[in-house]
Amino acid sequence: MGVKSGALLFALLAGSAAWAQPAGDCTPSAYNIPGANYPCVRPDRSVTFRVWAPAAQKVTVRIGKGVEMSKAADGWWYATSPPQAEGFHYYTLQIDGSIVADPATRTFFGSGFDNSAFEIPAPDEGFYQQRNVPRGDVRQHWYFSKVTQKWRRAYVYTPPDYDKNPKARYPVLYLLHGWGENEEGWHKQGRVDVILDNLIAEKKARPMIIVMDNLNASKPGEDASIFNARRLWPQPAPPRPPEGAKPAPGAPARGGLASFTGATFTEMMIQDLIPAIESAYRVAPGRENRAMAGLSMGGMQTFMTTLGNLDKFAYIGGFSGSSGWRPGFDVKTAHNGVFADPEKFNRQVKVLFLGIGSEEGTRTKEFSDLLTKAGIRNVYYVSPRTAHEWLTWRRCFREFAPLLFR
Amino acid sequence: MGVKSGALLFALLAGSAAWAQPAGDCTPSAYNIPGANYPCVRPDRSVTFRVWAPAAQKVTVRIGKGVEMSKAADGWWYATSPPQAEGFHYYTLQIDGSIVADPATRTFFGSGFDNSAFEIPAPDEGFYQQRNVPRGDVRQHWYFSKVTQKWRRAYVYTPPDYDKNPKARYPVLYLLHGWGENEEGWHKQGRVDVILDNLIAEKKARPMIIVMDNLNASKPGEDASIFNARRLWPQPAPPRPPEGAKPAPGAPARGGLASFTGATFTEMMIQDLIPAIESAYRVAPGRENRAMAGLSMGGMQTFMTTLGNLDKFAYIGGFSGSSGWRPGFDVKTAHNGVFADPEKFNRQVKVLFLGIGSEEGTRTKEFSDLLTKAGIRNVYYVSPRTAHEWLTWRRCFREFAPLLFR
Repeated sequence: MGVKSGALLFALLAGSAAWAQPAGDCTPSAYNIPGANYPCVRPDRSVTFRVWAPAAQKVTVRIGKGVEMSKAADGWWYATSPPQAEGFHYYTLQIDGSIVADPATRTFFGSGFDNSAFEIPAPDEGFYQQRNVPRGDVRQHWYFSKVTQKWRRAYVYTPPDYDKNPKARYPVLYLLHGWGENEEGWHKQGRVDVILDNLIAEKKARPMIIVMDNLNASKPGEDASIFNARRLWPQPAPPRPPEGAKPAPGAPARGGLASFTGATFTEMMIQDLIPAIESAYRVAPGRENRAMAGLSMGGMQTFMTTLGNLDKFAYIGGFSGSSGWRPGFDVKTAHNGVFADPEKFNRQVKVLFLGIGSEEGTRTKEFSDLLTKAGIRNVYYVSPRTAHEWLTWRRCFREFAPLLFR
Repeated sequence: MGVKSGALLFALLAGSAAWAQPAGDCTPSAYNIPGANYPCVRPDRSVTFRVWAPAAQKVTVRIGKGVEMSKAADGWWYATSPPQAEGFHYYTLQIDGSIVADPATRTFFGSGFDNSAFEIPAPDEGFYQQRNVPRGDVRQHWYFSKVTQKWRRAYVYTPPDYDKNPKARYPVLYLLHGWGENEEGWHKQGRVDVILDNLIAEKKARPMIIVMDNLNASKPGEDASIFNARRLWPQPAPPRPPEGAKPAPGAPARGGLASFTGATFTEMMIQDLIPAIESAYRVAPGRENRAMAGLSMGGMQTFMTTLGNLDKFAYIGGFSGSSGWRPGFDVKTAHNGVFADPEKFNRQVKVLFLGIGSEEGTRTKEFSDLLTKAGIRNVYYVSPRTAHEWLTWRRCFREFAPLLFR
């Protein structure tokens, strides 16, 4: 179809009801609410959006640099994005300045609030699609934390055979989300239960328990504002400590990820979470049956928690977020010197996994090379064609899980 | 404070940053995202809302008849509602015509999409508040339905002692949500796990399994549009059958609740769901260990399913939704005559529970009286000061659960 006839067709359609049904080659996204045809995904991975906003002046789809919508005569706004990367994408709408979720999709907690999302098919998507295989359960498990003095919710994946083998004990992976997300992320956005069910059915991974908790752990009075929504609306900057002041030991993190220590999460995890899980579930004992991994900020947390407690963990994974390595990082002294004796480290840590998306830059590769050069055995994985998004982390998990508890 | 000084204070505050923190007597609602101070609830049960919409012309909070918001000089809009009824309330915002969730709260699936919500404290709220008692798990359980030819998700509550007693078998309650909601409703909006944990801890209810599935069950090709969002945006009316035409047996429901038969759900439940649950969980056998209840449309479904299958169910609950009783209802012939022999019915059905909110009208009371007059034993319960909302149903469950499996 030439440009001219395409433009004519658009003009004919724009004011008619024909738009209520998307073009035949535009497939409704998997996360749409029942009955919603938009957003829909085209074969070239562009996405068409639709929103009802009869009195609005300006509506934008907030993905990439933003896609301006156009108003049709009937009050509906439409836009088609440029082709998107494969995988899961959060998005929001901006309606006359207000940033809100698109009511046409189910919502997913990210950036500190409930976003909309769409999914672009990937060539390897079979690994996170539901198949005709036995399914594990994902359990909402509440426990009381003495450290934070609050009830907390973890999601716990139990493998398909868990209830059939009431005497079996299983190794356990503690798996963390990223900044602005919560304990829901790995099974909703990440589909980790589907991925592991598929790997277990193919005998590529051992049956294991996965515990997905919330990074947001703060003691009474501690500042937890690092976990709050920042992109949604104007926020006052957090107060800065005086020039040159060092935070007191155990002091709450302030002023962004750079000062994030994760000390309270580590304390809570070791004093409250691990005992709660080991009391409620049939967990195999000892460090060689315990792994920890996380994405982005959750990867930073994983390194802080595990490298300070190698008596408790034998498997470590960082997905787009590892040791917080920065210029000046010294492999001999970092993390209280755990890397200083590579033979000892390699004996203790069965797998050190560093994963990243191909579009995320070279820092993780540089870190992996630096460790390798220092004699620290590690696994480096790159997810092709993906950025700092969930498809990177689904793939990282697919690569990491088969290495565990061997 | 007099009206005049109150108005002056408002004028002083409206353009300043002071509004970023609500008044001291306004308590952030339990469902706000981390760091959000609005919506907040005042002692008189009025609610103050805030939304960032710098370029909008008109913003309304969609509760009751709607509450118009006012724009402050800094781009924030504010409104305070009249006092609200106690309990859980869905709401949305309308921003220049577009109906969207308020990004300041977690979302809850209702009316076919993800709404915002706030919670007004109730005098009896202790029964649905988390206490220092053993907690059951709520499990996401996937199973394949041969009837619908789709994978389906149920949430399954297992009581606190379930994993400690690997040989014990438990009675089971199948519990349904209402129109426009889904399988998430009872544990998210309804807090049913918290309520039952508390009842079990007080020894007021027996430990039981609760299965929460989705009312939306349709065979390939069946019209499932009754489950789609209707209030969110203009929708074409569903096609009407020709005048005088009767739907074919098993034909899909069309044109609203009045023609809803629930036949596919019943078939799916009996052929797929119950076997899936009894294969995956330690369920006590037989009809006397099986109950079913639902709210609103889920109550209608419960009556249709159970009254047609009394060999399978001994306990029946309708919360703000019972038999679909309408003028012309004949107790002798309705539901294939199950009420015609009251002695037989009373022997079979251990509890027939009819609950309703005090503000919902008299139909349920009339139905209960009609059954009582016909010799059908039933329990009638009224939730004080509540309408067709979740606090009614939380209270119905609190009253119903202790009657089960005795």
